[in-house]
Amino acid sequence: MRPWVLLKQADIAFEEIQLWFGDDGAVHGIEPHSPTRKVPVLIVDGEPVWDSLAICEAVAEMFPQKRLWPEDVRARQIARSICAEMHAGFRELRGAMPMNISASFPGKGMSPEVQGDIDRIVNIWESCREHHGKGGHLLFGQFTAADAFYAPVASRFLTHAVTLPPVAQAYAEALLALPAVREWMEQARRENRFVRADEPYRSAPA
Amino acid sequence: MRPWVLLKQADIAFEEIQLWFGDDGAVHGIEPHSPTRKVPVLIVDGEPVWDSLAICEAVAEMFPQKRLWPEDVRARQIARSICAEMHAGFRELRGAMPMNISASFPGKGMSPEVQGDIDRIVNIWESCREHHGKGGHLLFGQFTAADAFYAPVASRFLTHAVTLPPVAQAYAEALLALPAVREWMEQARRENRFVRADEPYRSAPA
Repeated sequence: MRPWVLLKQADIAFEEIQLWFGDDGAVHGIEPHSPTRKVPVLIVDGEPVWDSLAICEAVAEMFPQKRLWPEDVRARQIARSICAEMHAGFRELRGAMPMNISASFPGKGMSPEVQGDIDRIVNIWESCREHHGKGGHLLFGQFTAADAFYAPVASRFLTHAVTLPPVAQAYAEALLALPAVREWMEQARRENRFVRADEPYRSAPA
Repeated sequence: MRPWVLLKQADIAFEEIQLWFGDDGAVHGIEPHSPTRKVPVLIVDGEPVWDSLAICEAVAEMFPQKRLWPEDVRARQIARSICAEMHAGFRELRGAMPMNISASFPGKGMSPEVQGDIDRIVNIWESCREHHGKGGHLLFGQFTAADAFYAPVASRFLTHAVTLPPVAQAYAEALLALPAVREWMEQARRENRFVRADEPYRSAPA
């Protein structure tokens, strides 16, 4: 979701290769595209760039005029810190509140450890909005890679009806209202094909 | 270890704040320094930059002449991809073969899942050495942030006497022979103070 939202919201053209998760969690048909056999992967000039954070850095370098990281050096350091923190962290939350665009599970999965993750995310959002968010409604005002990184969390909070304090709630709503995020969620709701682990991979019907 | 090795090997001056892990896994005395209460954290102009990957990016931006990422754009994309892959991945290996500079546990912790992580790391090392490593003995020839990121893994392989194919073994040896890695390991071997979870934090005796 993150690189897709980043590219789409920044109006950078790309082609999608549609693949399906099997019920074994593997991505069927990924082998020729990704050295890790995982998504996301971005093919640049025929060569793979993998992992959401490395894709963000590559795209930000390729399109400096899109300002995908904040221009201010201190804001940029914070943006990368909170993206890296999300990249490797918040495992209690991710484990207990899986992403499910189509579902509503109010309160499901909550525990003190999950609440700890939520509290830290709220703290990050409030701090960014207060210190760096003056130029707009997002973490660093205008859209940056950091918003793409926190979009899946906002979706989880929606699915699980997590109660947020006002500044965090307003940010979550601004994030979910971004055209790219809305489009991703709409497409995900229409997506319901899975392949069985023992089913040979076939291209999807056109 | 990663940011320390990065800064040290690149000959960038910094001051260390020495803190101790408690037996509860928390870092005692971290609160005033790190918003995540975790290490590593780098204080730049009085403000924290946290998480190893964000610290690498900040330092690389501050010291472009140190070439902490490869100069070639394609090599740089790969370097960031493999750092991000390490940042959030290889959890089987990390869980089963914890870092212990002072110990030797040949074979301990091995399983098919751990071997899968090792195979992927060997594949990364071999591919980088073959395609990008011509200018030296490291992943991208000369020292880059990617070597700092894989230094803890090389240390785990040493502790657990993991058998590697020749190219990977030669790289692991080159990495462990870097002056900054040797210095970190020597200092770590001398470090044996821990604080109990219920012990109030005190500065270390001078």
